[in-house]
Amino acid sequence: MIETPYLLFLGDAPDPLAAKVAQGIRDWRPEYALGQFRMEGCKADMKLPDMTLAEAKAAGAKTLVVGVANRGGVISQAWKKVLVAALEEGFDLASGLHNLLRDEPDLAAVAKATGRQLHDVRIPSVQYPIANGVKRTGKRCLAVGTDCSVGKMYTSLAMDAEMRKRGMKASFRATGQTGILITGEGVPLDAVVADFMAGAVEWLTPDNDPDHWDLIEGQGSLFHVSYSGVTMALVHGGQPDALILSHEPTRTHMRGLPGYELPSLEALRDMALPLARVANPACQVVGISVNSHAMGEDEALSYLEGVEKRMGLPAVDPFRQGAGRLVDALSGI
Amino acid sequence: MIETPYLLFLGDAPDPLAAKVAQGIRDWRPEYALGQFRMEGCKADMKLPDMTLAEAKAAGAKTLVVGVANRGGVISQAWKKVLVAALEEGFDLASGLHNLLRDEPDLAAVAKATGRQLHDVRIPSVQYPIANGVKRTGKRCLAVGTDCSVGKMYTSLAMDAEMRKRGMKASFRATGQTGILITGEGVPLDAVVADFMAGAVEWLTPDNDPDHWDLIEGQGSLFHVSYSGVTMALVHGGQPDALILSHEPTRTHMRGLPGYELPSLEALRDMALPLARVANPACQVVGISVNSHAMGEDEALSYLEGVEKRMGLPAVDPFRQGAGRLVDALSGI
Repeated sequence: MIETPYLLFLGDAPDPLAAKVAQGIRDWRPEYALGQFRMEGCKADMKLPDMTLAEAKAAGAKTLVVGVANRGGVISQAWKKVLVAALEEGFDLASGLHNLLRDEPDLAAVAKATGRQLHDVRIPSVQYPIANGVKRTGKRCLAVGTDCSVGKMYTSLAMDAEMRKRGMKASFRATGQTGILITGEGVPLDAVVADFMAGAVEWLTPDNDPDHWDLIEGQGSLFHVSYSGVTMALVHGGQPDALILSHEPTRTHMRGLPGYELPSLEALRDMALPLARVANPACQVVGISVNSHAMGEDEALSYLEGVEKRMGLPAVDPFRQGAGRLVDALSGI
Repeated sequence: MIETPYLLFLGDAPDPLAAKVAQGIRDWRPEYALGQFRMEGCKADMKLPDMTLAEAKAAGAKTLVVGVANRGGVISQAWKKVLVAALEEGFDLASGLHNLLRDEPDLAAVAKATGRQLHDVRIPSVQYPIANGVKRTGKRCLAVGTDCSVGKMYTSLAMDAEMRKRGMKASFRATGQTGILITGEGVPLDAVVADFMAGAVEWLTPDNDPDHWDLIEGQGSLFHVSYSGVTMALVHGGQPDALILSHEPTRTHMRGLPGYELPSLEALRDMALPLARVANPACQVVGISVNSHAMGEDEALSYLEGVEKRMGLPAVDPFRQGAGRLVDALSGI
């Protein structure tokens, strides 16, 4: 759908977390990530060659992917200059921003004049059904988090990669713009109309071989009051057989909600599992994935050991240790 | 916004529950409900005068309100004949259907030619914010159900009416098409884009006097896999101080989900309260409303007595007994 390879646009990213989209592409489809384009003041760095538009074009890049979140939902004039120049240079544009490329009159006009494509992957392109709750064949694994942005997508991508390496049948199922830009397909769940959220997740994870696993990308958190409804639709629409609990131990409050503390892993387990069993009575919590990037190696390993003992489940940081033990934990399901 | 009084269009309703919208208007704004229009095979009856379009027009009706759900999301040709004739007769049309009056080329053309209005109350007319979770002043009460369509809206409307009768400060806050058609305002929550659901509920129930109560219309159920995400957004966006548990004791399975049993009232309490306390740690379950319309009087009263003893909370059918004891139960909050 989106032509590869990419030039990753990092814009004026205020911090590395804002460039989550670019990081995801770089980590999981490095063969698509030819280079990066950074503007003045950019605080993100993918450790890719910095390229001008002309250099990237000469190197074979087809699409400029907006790999960074914008501020306040506005595509700034500074960004526009680059995006327009990219279209003129012969790039398609791809973006998962809330506000759409196609809604910007100048971008739409230049794209039309130059015959280039504007891919707004955040917009659902399918009329999703209402969920029917009917049990589907095949297995499904969902990562649920104590908070947003704690590594749920990363965990599912790492498990998907490990399972493919082992020759298992597995599909990463993208539910957000990053995942969709990485895999080229999926459901932009937070842009789906409320009544169809769970149906969209059912649609995304249809009947499959009995030994096939869908690794469903999680969204939000049951404890994040802004987005918990989206998480709920994943828990019920996804009918997971296995849940992975995801956590970032150094976070001092819920992302974007200064008044809200993170729940414990126990509280997450006790909330998520009964909810998941409404849709799939056989569901089990099989493991814990910890995003320990803010910890040193010793601290991280000792923290993981403590969690593993406390919870009686394998606890790993898939970035440090790989997802092997989480995949092992699926074998009994 | 919508001109009154109404002629209620019941169409070819396959059962009385399909005419929930008409029933709500008839129960809570009887002064708006001049008459009903029924087609061949209609299984619903509001006990209003059956009127032709001409009779209703002569009696002073201004708007034909679609008071029935359509099948399969299609406005049938049989309905169209009536709707077009109503426009020609001089009625505005109002509807809460998923598929919009304005999207039907014939209705749109006839409305334009005749100068009549098409009110699609299901479509959000506001750009809702992302929820911020900040504590708001004033009190809020939310009804949560073991299933969809168990009397949550009815309960909140009955409490609202009782509180106004007592001179208390109260506002019914509509979150569905029926409530919006009844009160003329609200949020069509199941049509809101996922990311903005909780924010829409915050917007609907803003800061208020410390002794003011919002009676928030519930939607779906935490146990209904098709719509639980919408319920979740109400529980977190509404920041309820008080929860009412709603139940229909004769239902044999979840509405529309033959494979799914209803949860017990205990299971609903144990699921809803911890979730509500994420947004409002002071939240309490204060009472139980039972829709006992399928039971005889003795059976209903004995069932309610049993629930009240079992749960240690006032349990009433507001339709049979009024909502007085549920309102009493708010006094300690």
